[in-house]
Amino acid sequence: MSVETMIEEMARAAKAAARQLRKVERGTKDAALSLMADRLLQRKEHIMKENRKDLDLAEERGLTSAMIDRLTLDDETIHSMAEGLREIAALPDPVGTVTRIWKRPNGLSVGRMRIPLGVIGFIYESRPNVTVDAAGLCLKSGNTVILKGGSEAIKSNLILEEILKESLDETGLPQKAVQVIPTTDREAVRILLGLEDYVDIIIPRGGEGLIRFVTEHSRIPVLKHYKGVCHIYVDKSADHGTASDICFNAKVQRPGVCNAMETMLIHKEVAAEFLPSIAGRLMEAGVEIRGCPQTLSLVPSAVPAQDADWGMEFLDLILAVKIVSGMDEALDHIDRYGSNHTEAIITNDYEHAMRFLGEVDSSVVLVNASTRFNDGNQLGLGAEIGINTSKLHAFGPMGLEELTTTKFIVYGNGQVRT
Amino acid sequence: MSVETMIEEMARAAKAAARQLRKVERGTKDAALSLMADRLLQRKEHIMKENRKDLDLAEERGLTSAMIDRLTLDDETIHSMAEGLREIAALPDPVGTVTRIWKRPNGLSVGRMRIPLGVIGFIYESRPNVTVDAAGLCLKSGNTVILKGGSEAIKSNLILEEILKESLDETGLPQKAVQVIPTTDREAVRILLGLEDYVDIIIPRGGEGLIRFVTEHSRIPVLKHYKGVCHIYVDKSADHGTASDICFNAKVQRPGVCNAMETMLIHKEVAAEFLPSIAGRLMEAGVEIRGCPQTLSLVPSAVPAQDADWGMEFLDLILAVKIVSGMDEALDHIDRYGSNHTEAIITNDYEHAMRFLGEVDSSVVLVNASTRFNDGNQLGLGAEIGINTSKLHAFGPMGLEELTTTKFIVYGNGQVRT
Repeated sequence: MSVETMIEEMARAAKAAARQLRKVERGTKDAALSLMADRLLQRKEHIMKENRKDLDLAEERGLTSAMIDRLTLDDETIHSMAEGLREIAALPDPVGTVTRIWKRPNGLSVGRMRIPLGVIGFIYESRPNVTVDAAGLCLKSGNTVILKGGSEAIKSNLILEEILKESLDETGLPQKAVQVIPTTDREAVRILLGLEDYVDIIIPRGGEGLIRFVTEHSRIPVLKHYKGVCHIYVDKSADHGTASDICFNAKVQRPGVCNAMETMLIHKEVAAEFLPSIAGRLMEAGVEIRGCPQTLSLVPSAVPAQDADWGMEFLDLILAVKIVSGMDEALDHIDRYGSNHTEAIITNDYEHAMRFLGEVDSSVVLVNASTRFNDGNQLGLGAEIGINTSKLHAFGPMGLEELTTTKFIVYGNGQVRT
Repeated sequence: MSVETMIEEMARAAKAAARQLRKVERGTKDAALSLMADRLLQRKEHIMKENRKDLDLAEERGLTSAMIDRLTLDDETIHSMAEGLREIAALPDPVGTVTRIWKRPNGLSVGRMRIPLGVIGFIYESRPNVTVDAAGLCLKSGNTVILKGGSEAIKSNLILEEILKESLDETGLPQKAVQVIPTTDREAVRILLGLEDYVDIIIPRGGEGLIRFVTEHSRIPVLKHYKGVCHIYVDKSADHGTASDICFNAKVQRPGVCNAMETMLIHKEVAAEFLPSIAGRLMEAGVEIRGCPQTLSLVPSAVPAQDADWGMEFLDLILAVKIVSGMDEALDHIDRYGSNHTEAIITNDYEHAMRFLGEVDSSVVLVNASTRFNDGNQLGLGAEIGINTSKLHAFGPMGLEELTTTKFIVYGNGQVRT
């Protein structure tokens, strides 16, 4: 069978399964999720055996130790996958919720009911545990999913698929609700991206190259984020202790993630007092400061910032620092160099706080809190499937509700249009 | 200047204007809308003079009288454009609304605030009054818009743009909030569809050819509907008077629109009593019935339905009729041939009504009411900019709220992530 025929058959089966799945009540979906968790633990040895084959090949190919680390499924990661499924089972089911019903003058009652999107194509490069997370979130929200993981994780992904499918089957749910593309042929992705008659939405997760490839080739709507160039603006009226703790947390706690701070903007009137102390604290933690000329005069050990440093996603212990004349310059800078991801202001000025919340065009805008809170779990959505920085459908972290849409339901008693 | 440079400059200007517009309060936007309405009436003669040039060319080119009719701007259409703008001014402004604020265990208050999408590309073939409607809806929802109308309406669209821009300017709003592409070169559309760095969303409105062209070439998300193949299922327990009135209304009141009924499904146990009478009523109104074999035995004057008649959008006084064995067959038929647009059931059976509302995967699903109610105004959204039958972002009719998205706003007092 050609790759083309195979992918098309998978997509067709996913669509048929989606029709069945959208009728399934919460209890059955939760039972399947719990069973999946049990089975993952019961078949731990089998999973590790298959994972070993991926690891052997990875070592042969000379993958970095960081990559091999991410690829490894051990006791702990398998337990945490199972735990993740149980957490998803505990979340409320958005499907069937009617958000509001209103009455029309002619007596019609009109409401909006949450329904699954249908078929989701999920394309990722990362750890095999993402296979289980994504499958769990899609199942709970009533969607079927076609998963395309990294080629280096193919054996691991296929054994995980087998276990998930068995649990679906035992619970009486369609096995085709979760499908892993069983080939490492890159052509498979390109074919999937063209099947707009079967697939409702594509979610890519990985590096900028993957995201760009998917966006360029997809005829299906894509929810994605390219990068997170997060800014914190320390306003004139900021409490210095608060500002220091938040900036330190946003840069240092986990520098390699999309919601870490990449640029710090500081009001000129507090720079002399605030900047040397926060810079010292950051540098002590190993952060390289790349500063504007005014920053350099206050922090002589900083490196001069190049043009390319503004708007750069370092994903590392590097921070661009700029001294600004006030709110206007801060907002202009963010508008020009930001990525619509996450921005925070540290201030005690009410008007400045409100203006920042209103005017900054990012998926999460914070006052006096760390950018690291842009995360579905942290914001209270439960588990998240990703962050969307395009404004369509869902802007920001996407949880179960963001994997649904609404249809209009109308209760009439004979109304016709005149 | 090349078309490419021109379109890119327009898009860049639209994005800059969008940043200004998203801060503007309702009062100013409403003032601009009212002024636009006044100016349209004051400059009626000028509009009709420019419209005359389009009409002359259309007559020269031998356009059909229906097309010329749609192109004509007379006293009545100009009044109705002005009235439309005043109605938009009277609608609530969705921008800035915070839908809900919840508290996290660490004390953060998290909310979702409605914000404009940004820049909308609106591509249409229809009447020049759409130019004014679309501009009004985009302005009220805080979005800037680039309009590309039909080439036969170019002079009319340009004079309308001039009047709208004057009103924006007089109200202190950016003129670039509303821009009409001043060329009939088709290449302009293709270029616009590639400018994903500036344009947030594309809304095409017109025939299936236009929609397919836009979807195929766009790198920007597209909200659209291809067609409306609307079904009504007359259940066993339906009240025959209600069923007859609703089916008649759905087919005959305005057969050329997307929410008109195209296929009627009838439960086999009521067909003998119900079908001859509704068929007689429809045929008296000039409707051609294309029936399944069982239909033909009850309505001898019906035409045998061909395979292609199921799922056909006739947009005319033609109706496909099929007798089904019950709910399951009706739901299967709709799933196979429907277009996810609008479906209705006529029933007095509670369980069947609930099942139909739950299982039918269409943007509007009705019980005991005409499919003709799938319309933003009729459902209570106020004016509508179009209907979306893809599930992303907004499924069904789109009003002002559907031209916005939400961002997360977070009120903290020093929280960091641990």
